[in-house]
Amino acid sequence: MSDCVFCKIINKEIPSTVVYEDERVIAFKDIQPAAPTHILVIPKRHINNIADPNLLQDGLATDLMKAIQTVTQELGLRENGFRVVVNCGRDALESVHHLHFHVLAGRSMSWPPG
Amino acid sequence: MSDCVFCKIINKEIPSTVVYEDERVIAFKDIQPAAPTHILVIPKRHINNIADPNLLQDGLATDLMKAIQTVTQELGLRENGFRVVVNCGRDALESVHHLHFHVLAGRSMSWPPG
Repeated sequence: MSDCVFCKIINKEIPSTVVYEDERVIAFKDIQPAAPTHILVIPKRHINNIADPNLLQDGLATDLMKAIQTVTQELGLRENGFRVVVNCGRDALESVHHLHFHVLAGRSMSWPPG
Repeated sequence: MSDCVFCKIINKEIPSTVVYEDERVIAFKDIQPAAPTHILVIPKRHINNIADPNLLQDGLATDLMKAIQTVTQELGLRENGFRVVVNCGRDALESVHHLHFHVLAGRSMSWPPG
């Protein structure tokens, strides 16, 4: 999508600090981190959000979970733990309308999650 | 796993309010809700957490995403929005060691997510 900021990051039209990339998924640092480590894991294909039926096609959900596993392993987030968050819609403060999994780590987190 | 509370819920040894069930996934109300609607979506197969490589097998990740989509559609959570949260490890307050996706809705949520 031409006006999607995450599509522009994928296409390297907007710079980002990429921590993982494969054919279908890219992961980069959130520019407004909510924790010492805050990574966004997103599909390269434009998927609107977690309610988008295109997420269920071609094993993309598995690719995204695999990327989360790789990122958390390679960045050493497993020992102390991490939280994964997806916002969908107004009440959850969904901001960019391109599916993204927030991966937060590096501090103790509280409950409820916002 | 014989000592896993979620496996006992799956096996109906412990009662729960089930809102969705198929061959591989079950969703039920959290008994300590952190929002007006608080559903746990879990695989029937015992998967330790989101870092467990067994999550990547047999399209299970897709089945879980599909269940989240069905639950949020059927419970009418899409219009105002919902948040999905997965805790892994100590810092994130992972409690039950059987993979579960928290689906929270019914109130405005804040950021950071805990």
